[in-house]
Amino acid sequence: MATKKPLILVSNDDGITAKGIRTLVQIMREIGEVVVVAPNSPQSGMGHAITIHSPLKIYASDVFEGQEGVIAYESSGTPADCVKLAKYYVLKNRVPDLVVSGINHGSNTSVSILYSGTMSAAMEAAIEGMPAIGFSLCDYGKDSDFSHTVPYVRDICQQVLKSGLPKGTALNVNLPARREQPLRGIKICRQAKATWKEEFDERVDPYGRKYLWLSGSFHNPDKGEDTDEWAIANNYISVVPCLFDLTAHHAISILNDDWAILHKPSGEVNLDHQDNF
Amino acid sequence: MATKKPLILVSNDDGITAKGIRTLVQIMREIGEVVVVAPNSPQSGMGHAITIHSPLKIYASDVFEGQEGVIAYESSGTPADCVKLAKYYVLKNRVPDLVVSGINHGSNTSVSILYSGTMSAAMEAAIEGMPAIGFSLCDYGKDSDFSHTVPYVRDICQQVLKSGLPKGTALNVNLPARREQPLRGIKICRQAKATWKEEFDERVDPYGRKYLWLSGSFHNPDKGEDTDEWAIANNYISVVPCLFDLTAHHAISILNDDWAILHKPSGEVNLDHQDNF
Repeated sequence: MATKKPLILVSNDDGITAKGIRTLVQIMREIGEVVVVAPNSPQSGMGHAITIHSPLKIYASDVFEGQEGVIAYESSGTPADCVKLAKYYVLKNRVPDLVVSGINHGSNTSVSILYSGTMSAAMEAAIEGMPAIGFSLCDYGKDSDFSHTVPYVRDICQQVLKSGLPKGTALNVNLPARREQPLRGIKICRQAKATWKEEFDERVDPYGRKYLWLSGSFHNPDKGEDTDEWAIANNYISVVPCLFDLTAHHAISILNDDWAILHKPSGEVNLDHQDNF
Repeated sequence: MATKKPLILVSNDDGITAKGIRTLVQIMREIGEVVVVAPNSPQSGMGHAITIHSPLKIYASDVFEGQEGVIAYESSGTPADCVKLAKYYVLKNRVPDLVVSGINHGSNTSVSILYSGTMSAAMEAAIEGMPAIGFSLCDYGKDSDFSHTVPYVRDICQQVLKSGLPKGTALNVNLPARREQPLRGIKICRQAKATWKEEFDERVDPYGRKYLWLSGSFHNPDKGEDTDEWAIANNYISVVPCLFDLTAHHAISILNDDWAILHKPSGEVNLDHQDNF
């Protein structure tokens, strides 16, 4: 055991007062010194948004007042902003040993990772070279029960503190909602090849103007037993290692072979149209 | 040649009035039937955000009035919302043959793809199974000169209409700013392993309250000549095929081998802490 407690940065996308982040902070307090930098309002669906067209606010938060070993800030920014603020403004020369985000109220399996503010905080930390994990509970309730997940969340964090993560990856951890049966364990998975089929609920405001609500349903044709969706459906915790290098490396040679336009001598490109614009 | 003109969906993140999308629409009009669904205000840095906590508005736009073969809508949503609106609300049963986003005012090379609204529109379209390309000009000026890129943008779109894209990928195309020398051609690249080093510019508002502006500088230690950054620096157009499956497949076996917690009999997990939460 290290004599010095690890430094753990905690963020989320549901906002600093959510039950999920309070649960996560309690677990992290057992493991290390905790710094919280989290949004002051819910940010779900924010993807990897950052704030560049308006200024950011950050201030000390009293949400965790009286909890020894916890320093907390809330910010007007997105989850990705919060990680940048933590690294470059709050902590400056100290580098967290672990960054955790969540626990999100609602699942972030499959392609939902792309829309997930929870995972954007983890990905941002991974880009910065820090071991990072996003946790999501597959239960959207504001007062969801996180208790069954606690020992697993702790185990996963301790494992990552001990053995690190493969370079260039962050973990997307989804936790099944509480059922009668206890959780069956942890599975390392791939992202299921599923999609959202969207619907737009059309309404009219009191002034006669039309507006729409986005409301989708999740469709998963991917029956693989190595997917995050399969794990959750079967009461396992899913752990998907995720890349922030989005390059489709296998596609590079395909395009190099297939694209006739690459093999034109440059003089052949028709430049006549330049003057039209 | 197909007798029917291809259906091309155009979006962006700088907003429907930006010069970049007007340039892109002009090029697309030469190739096919154009439907524009774009944000009614700038959305840079929005990443893959979607709007779930507030309603969306969408209405017919007159920005492209009088341009034959162009139907346009503007929306209060993000770029990813615009693609969802186009597919599930505007076009309904018609599926675009190509989705293009941009041309962004500013580069989206390397990790910037994760923050990019331009690329989120392309990625959203790729998730929906449509061939999709995000275009960005490495010049942040509002009145940037796009003219040198026009024949290349057209060639790339025609190539993709002709040969499609490898499954599960979208293209991130970055276009060098106009220089004295003509562009040297197109290169298929990987995403450079670079990062933003952030700074927060601290100011005080007229009421004495502190606020911060995010302002970063780009650091690229990756000297590979197969990267998008190298291509742009050397006056080539960079084309990076990108995945929306973020799974780090190589890391699955590493974690399966390394993680002691996976190999515990489930009874060994300490459940005593459940009652504390």
